[in-house]
Amino acid sequence: MPVITLLTDFGTEDEYVGVMKGVMLSIQPQAAIVDITHQVPPHHIFQAAQILTAAYPYFPAGTIHVAVVDPGVGTTRRVIALQKAGHLFLAPDNGVLSILLEKGGITSIVGVENEAFFLKPVSRTFHGRDIFAPVAAHLSKGIPLQRLGPEIRVDQLVRLEIARPYISDRGDIHGSIVAIDRFGNLITDIDIRILNRMADRFNHPRVIVHVSGQSISGLSNGYDTEDKGSPLALIGSRDCLEIAVSRGSAKIYFQAAVGDKVRVSVSE
Amino acid sequence: MPVITLLTDFGTEDEYVGVMKGVMLSIQPQAAIVDITHQVPPHHIFQAAQILTAAYPYFPAGTIHVAVVDPGVGTTRRVIALQKAGHLFLAPDNGVLSILLEKGGITSIVGVENEAFFLKPVSRTFHGRDIFAPVAAHLSKGIPLQRLGPEIRVDQLVRLEIARPYISDRGDIHGSIVAIDRFGNLITDIDIRILNRMADRFNHPRVIVHVSGQSISGLSNGYDTEDKGSPLALIGSRDCLEIAVSRGSAKIYFQAAVGDKVRVSVSE
Amino acid sequence: MPVITLLTDFGTEDEYVGVMKGVMLSIQPQAAIVDITHQVPPHHIFQAAQILTAAYPYFPAGTIHVAVVDPGVGTTRRVIALQKAGHLFLAPDNGVLSILLEKGGITSIVGVENEAFFLKPVSRTFHGRDIFAPVAAHLSKGIPLQRLGPEIRVDQLVRLEIARPYISDRGDIHGSIVAIDRFGNLITDIDIRILNRMADRFNHPRVIVHVSGQSISGLSNGYDTEDKGSPLALIGSRDCLEIAVSRGSAKIYFQAAVGDKVRVSVSE
Repeated sequence: MPVITLLTDFGTEDEYVGVMKGVMLSIQPQAAIVDITHQVPPHHIFQAAQILTAAYPYFPAGTIHVAVVDPGVGTTRRVIALQKAGHLFLAPDNGVLSILLEKGGITSIVGVENEAFFLKPVSRTFHGRDIFAPVAAHLSKGIPLQRLGPEIRVDQLVRLEIARPYISDRGDIHGSIVAIDRFGNLITDIDIRILNRMADRFNHPRVIVHVSGQSISGLSNGYDTEDKGSPLALIGSRDCLEIAVSRGSAKIYFQAAVGDKVRVSVSE
Repeated sequence: MPVITLLTDFGTEDEYVGVMKGVMLSIQPQAAIVDITHQVPPHHIFQAAQILTAAYPYFPAGTIHVAVVDPGVGTTRRVIALQKAGHLFLAPDNGVLSILLEKGGITSIVGVENEAFFLKPVSRTFHGRDIFAPVAAHLSKGIPLQRLGPEIRVDQLVRLEIARPYISDRGDIHGSIVAIDRFGNLITDIDIRILNRMADRFNHPRVIVHVSGQSISGLSNGYDTEDKGSPLALIGSRDCLEIAVSRGSAKIYFQAAVGDKVRVSVSE
Repeated sequence: MPVITLLTDFGTEDEYVGVMKGVMLSIQPQAAIVDITHQVPPHHIFQAAQILTAAYPYFPAGTIHVAVVDPGVGTTRRVIALQKAGHLFLAPDNGVLSILLEKGGITSIVGVENEAFFLKPVSRTFHGRDIFAPVAAHLSKGIPLQRLGPEIRVDQLVRLEIARPYISDRGDIHGSIVAIDRFGNLITDIDIRILNRMADRFNHPRVIVHVSGQSISGLSNGYDTEDKGSPLALIGSRDCLEIAVSRGSAKIYFQAAVGDKVRVSVSE
């Protein structure tokens, strides 16, 4: 069974996600359709980009990933399809595939223009139903990417401007909170590679994580430490620095929000 | 794989939806079960009726649609099954299929009474599990509707009293907000047919949409207009007049609620 | 198609549930994966234990039930797999399977230790992805439980301490509210067996249910009684005493919370 994943900001209160699945099953009755999430805050392209990047590698090769966070629906923004590492991605050209692009490995990109694969008449308000769902279903039946439309070069795609963590002259890492999960864990953009670069420079020192005017000394091995209710720092499931509270919520503990700065220094 | 859709007010916090799926898979292991939504506000039959009407046409012919918004569970209210345009519908006879009935095309209606297809003992509190799920699964295996119970005439079914939009003597359309979606878009009951009737009468005038003491001039082609944060009106994915705010929420902008009046006049 | 159910406290905002499904479909493309719920409050093992016990019997024999409410992830807490009544269960050994254990019928229990079935490297933070998902998928392919690790005796498992309803010297039943569902129904731990014991003792008397300083006389046959907005008591879908309000919310009516005491006496 071909796998199609869905990632949207549609929520689950309305009929929108169900309608997309109906369209897909009408074309490809064998599809196994998996929801990544539909709870992306409306129009929050960056959050969708992060979630997609974190989720897709765990799906089987050949999976078709559909990301519809699309504030520009009905305008001239393009719809794109691309292939990377054996996975197919279908999304508006608004930056939602940006983080994937950075990591390279793109083998093919096309603009989705061939109306033969659309549900007609195509509305100006619901391309999830009229373009993304039917095109994904057709892709799952094996039509080649090139039949969807003209090839596009990677440098022609829209990219999000994303702040990057960096190492200052003093050797501190400066990053920020990019997501807060359901448990209140603060997920930062400080990934294991930049931490390793810092570690190499200081010969594996003890790190101190600074957030919201407080500091956490050292990295824990897991969320469940001896000190229930105390903050801790660790490498989370996205391979990035996370700040958590054992059996509690770091979001509440630190009154933290996405965008807050996080600094990592080495123990004096 | 036979497709079964579910539309309930059960939410997703409890085991109720999962239990219905377990019952269905026990009888019909091949079913592709699709959630339309389980977030209908408790007992809100009208909202469920609208969502079902909007969603079902996008599913493949032969799909079985199960709608369990059923405040009268355990009373003598009937359970009905009906066929329309190649789709099967299973629901309590409480008006949740009303809007479907209005649009005609019903080829067969039965009262669901044959306990051979129920999960026994049948409780008084959870017919989703004991009647709707097993009957839907049996239908998906091809049993004819007539085996479920006696035929019922369409005029014997319970109907919701639904206010209708109308054109006044002056030629204005008077309607109301019937749903507000996740994005804060205000969905009205003013559909494209009544708008076309008005347009014919006035020789395609510029329309003005009045809501919450404010007015919007003209219809937009999509949600994403030049004026971010400004209100707009357009024909939405249900083919009805919608009021939206570009990159914002019309619900918040207008402090609007379901039931609020909307008027459409022609430009002076 | 083998059925795998998921019950977690992961919510549906993040990628966590989708990632687990991706891992499972990578190993077992034929799996029908069913969500019981992901809305268990974070770390609320007892609530997960109740929902699992209520839901699993409705699934087909051979179903694999995965319960990941796992505040101890990354510590030395064990992962266990057990067989009961033709169903397989996979969970952390933290009490989430406690209620199942009480009811007997366990035919086999193992500690899950064989890393050949894990996704490597195994993180300290996301065993849902690295242990539970791949092991469930392998189980669905028919590997015997014994290949996962050593047998464990039932008395070696962690159990929740759960207060039990009891019958006092006067003959009253003393219990408590153990869950409140989406409709605001108050679900108690007073099951039909203890009610029957009381009924036998008093020769089928009329019962009076006491909650929040108020009392309800007699049991109703369903939620939808003549008195809309009035409280009622009945036997709910878990075969336990429930307190409800006809077309309303008992949670709001009684300002009730999980843990509140409920007493059942007989009419004087």
